[in-house]
Amino acid sequence: MANDVQLSADGKLQHLLHIEGLDKTLLTQILDTAESFFNHADGSIVKKPVLRGRTVANLFFEDSTRTRSTFELAAKKLDADVLHFDVKGSALSKGESLKDTLQTLQAMHIDMFVIRHKENEIPIYCAELVGPRTAILNAGDGNRAHPTQALLDAFSIRKHKGGFEDLTVTIVGDIRFSRVARSQIAVLKTLGVKTLRVAGPDSLLPEDVSAMGVEVHRNLDDAVSDADVVIMLRVQKERMDSDLIPTTDAYFAEWGLTPERLKLAKADAIVMHPGPMNRGIEIASEVADGPQSIILDQVTNGIAVRMAVMSLIMSGRH
Amino acid sequence: MANDVQLSADGKLQHLLHIEGLDKTLLTQILDTAESFFNHADGSIVKKPVLRGRTVANLFFEDSTRTRSTFELAAKKLDADVLHFDVKGSALSKGESLKDTLQTLQAMHIDMFVIRHKENEIPIYCAELVGPRTAILNAGDGNRAHPTQALLDAFSIRKHKGGFEDLTVTIVGDIRFSRVARSQIAVLKTLGVKTLRVAGPDSLLPEDVSAMGVEVHRNLDDAVSDADVVIMLRVQKERMDSDLIPTTDAYFAEWGLTPERLKLAKADAIVMHPGPMNRGIEIASEVADGPQSIILDQVTNGIAVRMAVMSLIMSGRH
Amino acid sequence: MANDVQLSADGKLQHLLHIEGLDKTLLTQILDTAESFFNHADGSIVKKPVLRGRTVANLFFEDSTRTRSTFELAAKKLDADVLHFDVKGSALSKGESLKDTLQTLQAMHIDMFVIRHKENEIPIYCAELVGPRTAILNAGDGNRAHPTQALLDAFSIRKHKGGFEDLTVTIVGDIRFSRVARSQIAVLKTLGVKTLRVAGPDSLLPEDVSAMGVEVHRNLDDAVSDADVVIMLRVQKERMDSDLIPTTDAYFAEWGLTPERLKLAKADAIVMHPGPMNRGIEIASEVADGPQSIILDQVTNGIAVRMAVMSLIMSGRH
Repeated sequence: MANDVQLSADGKLQHLLHIEGLDKTLLTQILDTAESFFNHADGSIVKKPVLRGRTVANLFFEDSTRTRSTFELAAKKLDADVLHFDVKGSALSKGESLKDTLQTLQAMHIDMFVIRHKENEIPIYCAELVGPRTAILNAGDGNRAHPTQALLDAFSIRKHKGGFEDLTVTIVGDIRFSRVARSQIAVLKTLGVKTLRVAGPDSLLPEDVSAMGVEVHRNLDDAVSDADVVIMLRVQKERMDSDLIPTTDAYFAEWGLTPERLKLAKADAIVMHPGPMNRGIEIASEVADGPQSIILDQVTNGIAVRMAVMSLIMSGRH
Repeated sequence: MANDVQLSADGKLQHLLHIEGLDKTLLTQILDTAESFFNHADGSIVKKPVLRGRTVANLFFEDSTRTRSTFELAAKKLDADVLHFDVKGSALSKGESLKDTLQTLQAMHIDMFVIRHKENEIPIYCAELVGPRTAILNAGDGNRAHPTQALLDAFSIRKHKGGFEDLTVTIVGDIRFSRVARSQIAVLKTLGVKTLRVAGPDSLLPEDVSAMGVEVHRNLDDAVSDADVVIMLRVQKERMDSDLIPTTDAYFAEWGLTPERLKLAKADAIVMHPGPMNRGIEIASEVADGPQSIILDQVTNGIAVRMAVMSLIMSGRH
Repeated sequence: MANDVQLSADGKLQHLLHIEGLDKTLLTQILDTAESFFNHADGSIVKKPVLRGRTVANLFFEDSTRTRSTFELAAKKLDADVLHFDVKGSALSKGESLKDTLQTLQAMHIDMFVIRHKENEIPIYCAELVGPRTAILNAGDGNRAHPTQALLDAFSIRKHKGGFEDLTVTIVGDIRFSRVARSQIAVLKTLGVKTLRVAGPDSLLPEDVSAMGVEVHRNLDDAVSDADVVIMLRVQKERMDSDLIPTTDAYFAEWGLTPERLKLAKADAIVMHPGPMNRGIEIASEVADGPQSIILDQVTNGIAVRMAVMSLIMSGRH
């Protein structure tokens, strides 16, 4: 199984491809390491030169300024050199295969690749190809996995709620096509969330949703009731342009998180979103900017979590 | 007024949005600080790690290799980490608002944004949004302001002329649509230039030119006569494609700085241009490359001036 | 001659524009310096901060992710600051001449330009323009020269074969339009390769091939027989789209390096390729990935050789 590729024989993290196969101890170690990068006096993130002399390369086959920037910032806070590959202008467009490109970059003694690709399992393929000498970090592949997003979400929940065991967490929206939702479910189940709910229109629930081991809701009011954490997912443009969603107004009426609906959750519930948000489609601005929103704090935590993954992988290689 | 946003309660520089509102003492402090970054033995710019651990992000909504590069070099000479945002590929093109983008980047603990935008006052909006915790540097907005260009021009004049009080400075060309001209006029008036002249065809003078507190000339020979400093502005391509300018040949005949016309200025007059130049349109090559031109020195000075602004803003935040 | 521009009065390297004019002593010094950057314990490349405080600017008028990245990595391993100029978005597209752009960048106190251009001799023009104060490194111009590629090839041959004097080296493919072939021939002749062969279809041999001082073969079996080194060149897309090549299948049948043909070479012959490869056109995958291929090692060596050139040029300036 793919687990083998992510972990060394003695259980050390070698690549980060998906949450599946990582146990509670390892996930907790990642969150604790992320915690250690914060200066608790002022909430800032500390610079630690543990990747000094190392090179991290970004290979983004899909645009993502936000994810690319937080990986870059994380690498620089660890004092790594960072290379960007504009994959559109690269040898791939001259007909060189992904395999040749990766092996060529590996021959440049790059230590870590951060890869985003629109096709599922490309990062697994890459990890199998490069072997343990070079690390692969999945920054999102197809609709399959986005492990650092899920880890930063778990970190954010623990930071604001103290743990996972007593929580009801609700994930709302496009569960079907969302790599974020898939990775969130995996991480939160492993970390022991008591009640994990997903909610969305039938058209955006996966066919195998009943096998996911989560409560399925087809009504937002029910899904949000007494929740400790409400995670709203982005409605992708492709979904709006398809028949899967009626109109954005109708979507907001049925599935948008409004201040009224949020009142159904616990009084101290927190609201999360992976960004970028569609205000007025999946979330009302009053909620996005309101006191229960920790959406901007998620961004900050994303840097520390990515630093944690990078430093753990690199320390595991010695 | 916008002054409030740029300055802290005790008068320290927090953002640089425009020249208006900055007094002679503060402008002189910026020029003196820029001076301190030069190694006077060989004219080189010294590396000073005063922004070590800080992150500067470039947000250029308009192309400008020259301005972007000098800001990047300035930041690196101060040992900051520099992030580039290709704003075209960013979340803004996914419908995320500028507000969400800025707040997201701020949540990444970026210390300073360098912003260029084709619309007026966007940097003011950004400064009001991010507050004093994050600094905004205006790298040019619409036809309103380009404060670092004006500061480097002032620095260059002081370096070559020793001061401002006795000078006649002439600015020639597209005064109407030029953010550079507007900021130059503001900085040179505050620094006490004795005679400040603007000159250009009627179509390129602003309607309120008589209220600008400068001498207005509609003839280049008159405008240049006995000047100590002649600043030629770039004729933008948009202007050439419009009816505002007859032909480039006709423009050069009437408004181009030729060796003959330059003889009307003082014998030791200097010639400046913000670049990139249109040789043979606003300036003759013999003048651009001649002994009175300090055009390339302006580029060098631009790095020191941007270092000065960045380091003053950062020191004002502690 | 152009030699003068590359070398200072006392024979130090000031620019790297082409191999012609560099003698065996200097070429050997470059290879020895590259050697010194390797950690022989693990084959890694050592970080040496000899360009700390220096700025290297990439000016790529043609795309080349591979070459650009190795230059960038080389510069960062020497602790230089690296600037990228997206030349398409730059002042050049606003009508500023190459001369003004270079002089402007030089005024930013950039120490070294790495230039790739589709026109021949542009790097020579640039070196003459900027003078000895700023170094020009040719990263490939037109079909004329690609000196760092040729140097890394020579380095790779010496590393695997111990020297040059007893070798038979065969270069196969598009000799006519290849800057790589031209520079390889120059470097290998100067370093004393005993037998240097070129081979390719008549349509891809230069008209003056008989004057190049190499053995010319019009049959791949003959060309490869008893060779110590076989260098396969890339068939450019432009060539495939022209009449110069019949079909890629026909090309492979006649000029592709297959395992069978490689058996005609010496038993310990090595196979090289500058990349990116067209598998199944100029080279069979079994050969590219086989035990005699050193194609990925060439990539690694390219970083050390570029570090060597950069550090020698910079040390020559003091």
